[in-house]
Amino acid sequence: MLRTHTCGELRITHVGQTVTLTGWVQRQRDKGSILWIDLRDRYGITQLFFEEGSTPAALMQAAKAVGREYVIQAKGVVAERLSKNDKLPTGDIEIKVTELVVLNTAKTPPFTIEDNTDGGDELRMKYRYLDLRRNPVRESLQLRHKMAQQTRTYLDSQNFIEVETPVLIKSTPEGARDFVVPSRINNGEFYALPQSPQTFKQLLMVSGFDRYYQIVKCFRDEDLRADRQPEFTQIDCEMSFITQEDILSTFEGLIRHLFKTVKNIDMPSVPRMTYDEAMKLYGSDKPDTRFEMKFVEIKELTGGKNFPVFDSAEMVVGICAKGCAEYTRKQLDELTEYVKRPQVGAKGLVYVQCKADGSFKSSVDKFYSADDLKTWAAKFNAQPGDLLLILSGETNTVRKQLNELRLLMGEKLGLRDKNKFSALWVIDFPLLEWDDETKRYHAMHHPFTSPKPDDIKLLDTRPGDVRANAYDMVINGTEVGGGSIRIHDRETQSMMFNHLGFTPEEAKKQFGFLLDAFEFGAPPHGGIAFGFDRLCSIFGGADSIRDFIAFPKNNSGRDVMIDSPSTISAEQLKELGIKVS
Amino acid sequence: MLRTHTCGELRITHVGQTVTLTGWVQRQRDKGSILWIDLRDRYGITQLFFEEGSTPAALMQAAKAVGREYVIQAKGVVAERLSKNDKLPTGDIEIKVTELVVLNTAKTPPFTIEDNTDGGDELRMKYRYLDLRRNPVRESLQLRHKMAQQTRTYLDSQNFIEVETPVLIKSTPEGARDFVVPSRINNGEFYALPQSPQTFKQLLMVSGFDRYYQIVKCFRDEDLRADRQPEFTQIDCEMSFITQEDILSTFEGLIRHLFKTVKNIDMPSVPRMTYDEAMKLYGSDKPDTRFEMKFVEIKELTGGKNFPVFDSAEMVVGICAKGCAEYTRKQLDELTEYVKRPQVGAKGLVYVQCKADGSFKSSVDKFYSADDLKTWAAKFNAQPGDLLLILSGETNTVRKQLNELRLLMGEKLGLRDKNKFSALWVIDFPLLEWDDETKRYHAMHHPFTSPKPDDIKLLDTRPGDVRANAYDMVINGTEVGGGSIRIHDRETQSMMFNHLGFTPEEAKKQFGFLLDAFEFGAPPHGGIAFGFDRLCSIFGGADSIRDFIAFPKNNSGRDVMIDSPSTISAEQLKELGIKVS
Repeated sequence: MLRTHTCGELRITHVGQTVTLTGWVQRQRDKGSILWIDLRDRYGITQLFFEEGSTPAALMQAAKAVGREYVIQAKGVVAERLSKNDKLPTGDIEIKVTELVVLNTAKTPPFTIEDNTDGGDELRMKYRYLDLRRNPVRESLQLRHKMAQQTRTYLDSQNFIEVETPVLIKSTPEGARDFVVPSRINNGEFYALPQSPQTFKQLLMVSGFDRYYQIVKCFRDEDLRADRQPEFTQIDCEMSFITQEDILSTFEGLIRHLFKTVKNIDMPSVPRMTYDEAMKLYGSDKPDTRFEMKFVEIKELTGGKNFPVFDSAEMVVGICAKGCAEYTRKQLDELTEYVKRPQVGAKGLVYVQCKADGSFKSSVDKFYSADDLKTWAAKFNAQPGDLLLILSGETNTVRKQLNELRLLMGEKLGLRDKNKFSALWVIDFPLLEWDDETKRYHAMHHPFTSPKPDDIKLLDTRPGDVRANAYDMVINGTEVGGGSIRIHDRETQSMMFNHLGFTPEEAKKQFGFLLDAFEFGAPPHGGIAFGFDRLCSIFGGADSIRDFIAFPKNNSGRDVMIDSPSTISAEQLKELGIKVS
Repeated sequence: MLRTHTCGELRITHVGQTVTLTGWVQRQRDKGSILWIDLRDRYGITQLFFEEGSTPAALMQAAKAVGREYVIQAKGVVAERLSKNDKLPTGDIEIKVTELVVLNTAKTPPFTIEDNTDGGDELRMKYRYLDLRRNPVRESLQLRHKMAQQTRTYLDSQNFIEVETPVLIKSTPEGARDFVVPSRINNGEFYALPQSPQTFKQLLMVSGFDRYYQIVKCFRDEDLRADRQPEFTQIDCEMSFITQEDILSTFEGLIRHLFKTVKNIDMPSVPRMTYDEAMKLYGSDKPDTRFEMKFVEIKELTGGKNFPVFDSAEMVVGICAKGCAEYTRKQLDELTEYVKRPQVGAKGLVYVQCKADGSFKSSVDKFYSADDLKTWAAKFNAQPGDLLLILSGETNTVRKQLNELRLLMGEKLGLRDKNKFSALWVIDFPLLEWDDETKRYHAMHHPFTSPKPDDIKLLDTRPGDVRANAYDMVINGTEVGGGSIRIHDRETQSMMFNHLGFTPEEAKKQFGFLLDAFEFGAPPHGGIAFGFDRLCSIFGGADSIRDFIAFPKNNSGRDVMIDSPSTISAEQLKELGIKVS
């Protein structure tokens, strides 16, 4: 090694030892006759010390010549500092340098290598290798490393086997778009990159692997929304001979293990809520349960007062914002503007201020008496000082709108603390969802999810009411994982393909191998996949997944550092048997 | 869980307990009034027992009805067996079944699910999910799992950070062909799949990650030779502030850790040999050192006897095959035929039989006296009973030919035991190798490998003599890993690109980001990558990597199970902006 110690290692007990350190020049302070260099590596920062008189002139000169981000090797003796720095683990000591070697020079970085950098997003991405030197980014990736380690530790302890599934697979038209790979040996044919190893992990269950996992790259050629990546990582798992209960308890175990080992947080048992309940109480299948503010439906209290908006609405539903009764007119107008934004889409907002003196002031005083409002407030369990915010309209639509308002109020009231964690299982998802664009039902999870046996009879008559053995794990209002108990017999799987609009020929061409496999002794099985990038960002208390990925792509799917995608040579195209059209 | 225990778990201490097992019917033995079923899962086999009289008639009937590979759930009481089977961990007990549920039926498998199956290669691959049920295949993948676990355990303990590098990167013309991925958002542009994360791991070093590893899929669109896969897995590692010595000792540590923890073998310290020495002593840069049989050069002993073959040869070199003096004429002819095969390409073979009585018999008795042969034998350190096998010709050619013969003799003499392991570092590889096809020098390792400082001066005059800071690890004659100390400054890297025939513009277009990165404080660094599939197969004592990959492709790069690659829709092609030509 070019060093004897790292820059995070030396303590007061090392005083007097001769050591050699290597690293980057974080900072150089030149006071003329005294000079300090903060030397940085992954492990920490150590102060180097040079002083006229005791330091030879040539060495002093060399120390003055190094610049920011130079890579140097310094040999010297560990000494106790005169003025200690208790913010640094190495703050008790410094190195009285006797030899200095510049291992590499550095141009001035295009942005500062500091926790709060002056670099903008594009610049940071172009010079990602410099951005990765910054503590917050490096720490995010170290957190990710620890998450992966602990995920494996837990799953290993539960007898899961890690199996690598192929990356060059087959394109299937179901779901999101595939990335494809032209085959040179078989011109005109293509591999596809997996959106998930779904069918392979099911085949591993047919093979008797019993418990499978993999931390695996997946790919989706979607139009990128903010914070989506064309390649992303899943913790992908599957188990045999289980019920839904076994999956929930096993993976609740994983999440609690991760919180304990990575964050030292004792997470309580994860509560469960049905999809229907989540939609009714939060207007979302991924409610943020860090705070209550549950929906209260008051349609039955609003009738007969000639308020046409409520009278014509299928649903009247609101939330109670604690302690917000004294919101100003301006604040209330802002809330109204918020729900009327096209992204939310409400027509208007009704509020009721429950004043401290027991009186009420509302935006519908023209229609409703103080007694009416008191009845409403009672239903909300509102206290003096609270503010009721009420929307109305078609049930599903208004719930989604109120969900947005609830999240905004949670934000305003400081109830969405990034250092607080609330996990939830949402269960009993619908099997199918109607797609207005294609005018047909799609699998809400995927075509391999099993319907609840009691609901199968509804498939022909009320397909939208069929519930699935499907579940999501939600943390802080973000879906971090989801899965299902799978179909494991050919007949049910064929019926499901049929309901999803596959002809028997299409089903056979795409998934014939799976249908065949189900005839050779497929065990009952189910599984789950966690979005690993997102899970890491939540553990890291960050909004964006970007800094939990070493080399992310931008929102146009470009890697601006290596400048990819890019053109390829005519010769390559010819060999692959394709033309750019 | 649908079971209380696995099929590998029950022992004599469980007798009397009521248990529920699930699994596959391995075998059913029906003796009329008594019936046994061997129930199999990943964990083992347990015997189920049914007997007329104690077993209700309907249950007896049900037990008789199950077939091979049916998936069943059996409840019953653990009982001591009358005739125990000490080959099975569960051989002391059986289950007196009280309830039987068929969880899934099974068609008769197309081949037997036994250690030695009757299925041919293509059939096994088409029904890989059934092939994976066989013990040897499942055990190979369990070994792989353990190898991955222990690799991570070791590298974690050495402060390596696992970082995922991108899969959608950029095509580079150097080296093997890339698989490419057309971009839908950027029509006419392509991503490429990585042949290795080489540049990214070097950038991580520039970022100060200090120690990186990843067990990662890589891709090469090569014309597939036997036992090559278009996608393969590497243990990919990089370290900063190190010398070659640090890499060798760190990764020797990894291999020894794997042998200890996975095979319980105490592997001695790994010896080192220069490339030149390996070529001289074994005619190969990946010698099988499980046995000696080193090359002995005798050109200087053969002159002046008018044997034109040796007189005109640049090199006369042979091996001593212990105890083979009594090889018959037929055996010797077979060896001659072997070296004359086009794959080996020798013109002929000279042998000397060192008879037990001290006399010599050779194929060149016409030219050389017994005294001559005695001198040769002494040089070989041959004993009575040994056989000398000698080839001659151009040095590099004849060495390669003799390497083939040496390996054959090792095979014949049983010196290549799959359960014996011999590891070796080959160091000081040439930096460049001449390519007859393109008539220019190529990087032997890759363009980022640093030349030995002392040899840089030869780059212009004798490029073939420049040695690199490059090393391979060889186990049992197979290269399992290789790496190098990298170039870490722009000037040397640019010079290297120039020597490899890149114009400055090409170098900038392909690797500009790396050249730029080297200007912002790149530390000295180096690394290694192990071929994980191959490493697993060597640990598993297998010749082929096939069964250490869950879903391999065949020699035409096809997955015959899912039938991939395959055509994609006209709509997909249109979206991607490409045409099949």
